[in-house]
Amino acid sequence: MLLRHGESEWNAKGLFTGWVDAGLSEKGEEEARRGGRLLVEAGVRPDVVHTSVLTRAIQTANLALGTADLLWLPVNRSWRLNERHYGALQGKDKAQTRAEFGDEQFMLWRRSYDVPPPPIADDDEFSQAGDPRYALLPGELMPRTECLKDVVERMLPYWYDRIVPDLAAGRTVLVVAHGNSLRALVKHLDRIGDDEIAGLNIPTGIPLRYELDDDFHPVVKGGEYLDPEAAASAIEAVANQGR
Amino acid sequence: MLLRHGESEWNAKGLFTGWVDAGLSEKGEEEARRGGRLLVEAGVRPDVVHTSVLTRAIQTANLALGTADLLWLPVNRSWRLNERHYGALQGKDKAQTRAEFGDEQFMLWRRSYDVPPPPIADDDEFSQAGDPRYALLPGELMPRTECLKDVVERMLPYWYDRIVPDLAAGRTVLVVAHGNSLRALVKHLDRIGDDEIAGLNIPTGIPLRYELDDDFHPVVKGGEYLDPEAAASAIEAVANQGR
Repeated sequence: MLLRHGESEWNAKGLFTGWVDAGLSEKGEEEARRGGRLLVEAGVRPDVVHTSVLTRAIQTANLALGTADLLWLPVNRSWRLNERHYGALQGKDKAQTRAEFGDEQFMLWRRSYDVPPPPIADDDEFSQAGDPRYALLPGELMPRTECLKDVVERMLPYWYDRIVPDLAAGRTVLVVAHGNSLRALVKHLDRIGDDEIAGLNIPTGIPLRYELDDDFHPVVKGGEYLDPEAAASAIEAVANQGR
Repeated sequence: MLLRHGESEWNAKGLFTGWVDAGLSEKGEEEARRGGRLLVEAGVRPDVVHTSVLTRAIQTANLALGTADLLWLPVNRSWRLNERHYGALQGKDKAQTRAEFGDEQFMLWRRSYDVPPPPIADDDEFSQAGDPRYALLPGELMPRTECLKDVVERMLPYWYDRIVPDLAAGRTVLVVAHGNSLRALVKHLDRIGDDEIAGLNIPTGIPLRYELDDDFHPVVKGGEYLDPEAAASAIEAVANQGR
């Protein structure tokens, strides 16, 4: 069961967020509660929760679980589920960046599989170089920019080592994370090619259910949103971001 | 660092709560946020958090950590940090119970070290017999009533096996729990006798800091509240409950 965090204060402002620790907007909080209601209505009871270490994902998990009376579930957090690090674009206005660098470069940074934005400087105000939540990350592991390929590579060890064992034990797992870390996971699950993944958007706040086979790949490719109509219209809206 | 959850909706109504999963009252939410502010003001940065599996403790942890910008901390939850199970008294009015059974019996149930209330029936509306959060507890471990001695015995394995290893690794630990599970822990830490523990009250929402020696006992007996004045007046109020 995958859940993308609700709208953040920075989403609302149209800024590249990445690893910057923006909180949920009021709309995002409401989306998170809707996520919890959808779990209850579908009769889904996760046994364990995995989140990133970013506040907007943790708030989403806490609000959804609180709504579903499931705050007591065990929870694990990891930087490996974080949003893509947006490098030097972090803190920049999306529409302005598009105007400044042109459509082609903008879409390359946003949607290419293996072209990262320029790295962020450690002394940039939007760098996470001194953030205590990454104090245990050796310097060579701490990203300064990422393309989606980088996210796949740093996310997969968490999938294999921490989530698959829960699934193997028969547990229902809830992963609360971000647009790009969830795209990375869905790419792996659905075996989506490097060239096809650009077209995939995951809407905020609508749980996406995957039933997995014995090899931990989906029985039905693409899974199933708990509110398919809301998902379809939200996917279109995400595709239009930055226009 | 110990933190007792803020006022719950059932505390506010004067009911015996125990393992019944009451949420925080608005006052309790504010107490939790104050706990977070006190952490920040004292410059205390926990490395890891331990909570019970009861909603009021988890809400307190989430609100305090949210206020301190520490939602990303790793967190562990266990029934071993739960409030004392109040047996057949769960759901009963405190003042009414006192009137019905008399001062002596009332204080024996509330404050004696080794006299538990009568056990609760599994089909009682305030029993937790079917609660999914205890699904992994074998029947012989699932309490139907507890005295403080029982709480000490079921809490200590968690202290020794889960919290002490964190402390041994040099981590600052935050335990967010309940009046009686924290009294049990303080009894152990401060080596308080079975007869003396009755007089100890722990106020809600005020972090209590212990510095521990190499043997994981306090350098200063009783620790230090981060807001000593508020703690002193709150301790008096707790002592008057049910009057």
